[in-house]
Amino acid sequence: MVLMIKEFGDINLNDFKNDFAYILVIGTTDISLIPGITIAGATPELTHFTPAADAEYIILGKCKSINTIPVSPSGIPTPALVTRAALSFINPLKLVVNAGSRVLPKIPFIDLQGEPGRDIRKYALSLEKVNSIIENGMKLGEELSNAFKVLVIGESIPAGTTTAMATLAALGYDAIDKVSSASPDNPKELKRRVVLEALKSLPTDLNQKLAKVSDPVLLGVASISLGFKGKVLLAGGTQMVAAAAIIKELNKNKIHDIVIGTTKWIIEDKSADMLGLSKQVGVRVLVSMLNFSISKFDGIKAYEMGYVKEGVGAGGSAIMAFIRGITNEQLVEKIDELYQKLLSSNA
Amino acid sequence: MVLMIKEFGDINLNDFKNDFAYILVIGTTDISLIPGITIAGATPELTHFTPAADAEYIILGKCKSINTIPVSPSGIPTPALVTRAALSFINPLKLVVNAGSRVLPKIPFIDLQGEPGRDIRKYALSLEKVNSIIENGMKLGEELSNAFKVLVIGESIPAGTTTAMATLAALGYDAIDKVSSASPDNPKELKRRVVLEALKSLPTDLNQKLAKVSDPVLLGVASISLGFKGKVLLAGGTQMVAAAAIIKELNKNKIHDIVIGTTKWIIEDKSADMLGLSKQVGVRVLVSMLNFSISKFDGIKAYEMGYVKEGVGAGGSAIMAFIRGITNEQLVEKIDELYQKLLSSNA
Repeated sequence: MVLMIKEFGDINLNDFKNDFAYILVIGTTDISLIPGITIAGATPELTHFTPAADAEYIILGKCKSINTIPVSPSGIPTPALVTRAALSFINPLKLVVNAGSRVLPKIPFIDLQGEPGRDIRKYALSLEKVNSIIENGMKLGEELSNAFKVLVIGESIPAGTTTAMATLAALGYDAIDKVSSASPDNPKELKRRVVLEALKSLPTDLNQKLAKVSDPVLLGVASISLGFKGKVLLAGGTQMVAAAAIIKELNKNKIHDIVIGTTKWIIEDKSADMLGLSKQVGVRVLVSMLNFSISKFDGIKAYEMGYVKEGVGAGGSAIMAFIRGITNEQLVEKIDELYQKLLSSNA
Repeated sequence: MVLMIKEFGDINLNDFKNDFAYILVIGTTDISLIPGITIAGATPELTHFTPAADAEYIILGKCKSINTIPVSPSGIPTPALVTRAALSFINPLKLVVNAGSRVLPKIPFIDLQGEPGRDIRKYALSLEKVNSIIENGMKLGEELSNAFKVLVIGESIPAGTTTAMATLAALGYDAIDKVSSASPDNPKELKRRVVLEALKSLPTDLNQKLAKVSDPVLLGVASISLGFKGKVLLAGGTQMVAAAAIIKELNKNKIHDIVIGTTKWIIEDKSADMLGLSKQVGVRVLVSMLNFSISKFDGIKAYEMGYVKEGVGAGGSAIMAFIRGITNEQLVEKIDELYQKLLSSNA
């Protein structure tokens, strides 16, 4: 039998067999409007619709803010498909949390009263909104502790790896050129140029630093984790390393309750250094060894060629399914089924 | 031993021993601005701050939108105090749901994307927003079914008994002069005048009727209940009969999963007819036989003289505490402790 989960660090998998809630934190950064920086949307303008549409697909099984699910310019579908398929075997409570999105999803969602992220080369967020997201996020995490022992927290924010790189670098980590990308051709030059410009004239105060170069989703993910009393699976790639770094900055001990759950495509991404970054921050990593080569659809198989890789909590959700005995075959069959349904509804 | 819960209808109390989530649905109606119609706020203008402040008190133990907790013109404190005290023995997950409030609470809350209720003598809500509240509320209820077998749903909307009377009458019930009041002197003439004017030129379509004469909270409470798959305790007074009537209108069978949980002060209110209204709608009722005469504080003892009576899910929360073995003495002691804390923090 192929082992479907790889562990990096000393992790007790039983912790994650408890009932959990799945939290999707959504937001936007205006960095996604820079042509070529992200493929999380068919055009730069459409990237601002992606988080709302991802959230709608997770909750409703269909999108309302756009006609179909988010796709890359070449038509590769959002990882929300993987998440919805994986969670369908478990049926946890799913909550969408808006940390700051230009487009609001047409579903019930929890609002942290943040704001959309602006351009990090100028100033991403107001200090007031940084504080609001952190305060409300911590309160939400604390409240969720009354009902759950585990949270799985996913994210949807196009260009989030660029703000993650800026945030990690601002916090003193060796992160330049080490974050991943939804594209098989990581636009590293462009990202580096944007990040280096953003890092000029960096404030010294922590919250001011975060206001300057981070994004609402990183702050939302970190603060919900900080308030929560149980174990947290940060479901995502290199962005979640930045979230973990913020958590550590605000509460050093909390990092022991945190594990990142991601996909093999992130780990295998030679244009990035997921495990090296995680080691720097001191956060443990679980990897779901998904294999999409058995899919019936080219759009899904494309993940094996480095398209998309991760997002919307896909890797972490797959881990939760695998821990509960679901096989890769079952999961891919479910993904194919959901994808087929989408193709026919658009026909 | 004094029996702390009275049952009206065939109710299995064991249903309510399961883990539950407490949901507070907040909203406003411009009817609360009519002088003399409600005492849920120190002035008519302040009634629009009451739901936000109630929500903040439930989640944070303090208010942010106003300096202290909501009080009546004569200083009697909000029933949020009773709710927070009762729930402190159980620690359920508490979620605030905004169905449509003029003032937004400074806490994380779930948004149903409704709107504040306008004057029912003109038109309370747009049909679009009625549909949005119902759709999002049902989805939220459905999602909560993944984690809970029971919901306790409370409300905060000043002047909500007037819109409840209008809604019940619009749905064909004999409700004029039969709803309760937070005041010991129920302003029945005024309420009747407002409601009768609102009922003129009533549309025939159900959702249009609700748009004309109801309020966002009634719709939020009803729709969350409709989407939820387990048992629901509608924690409130005559307003919850109106919510139950909407539930029945939209799904006749659902009424069998619904029980109203209220206080003895509502049942004993001779200016209203809680049990008669409940019988008309066919919804069962549980009553918490709270006794505040043993309190150390006049502001709390005032409940025994018919002030406030109910709200913010106080009666239902007390029922959940009583079912779990908490005594009236323990509850009142806790209420006194919380009230003392508020008095000292304002000193």
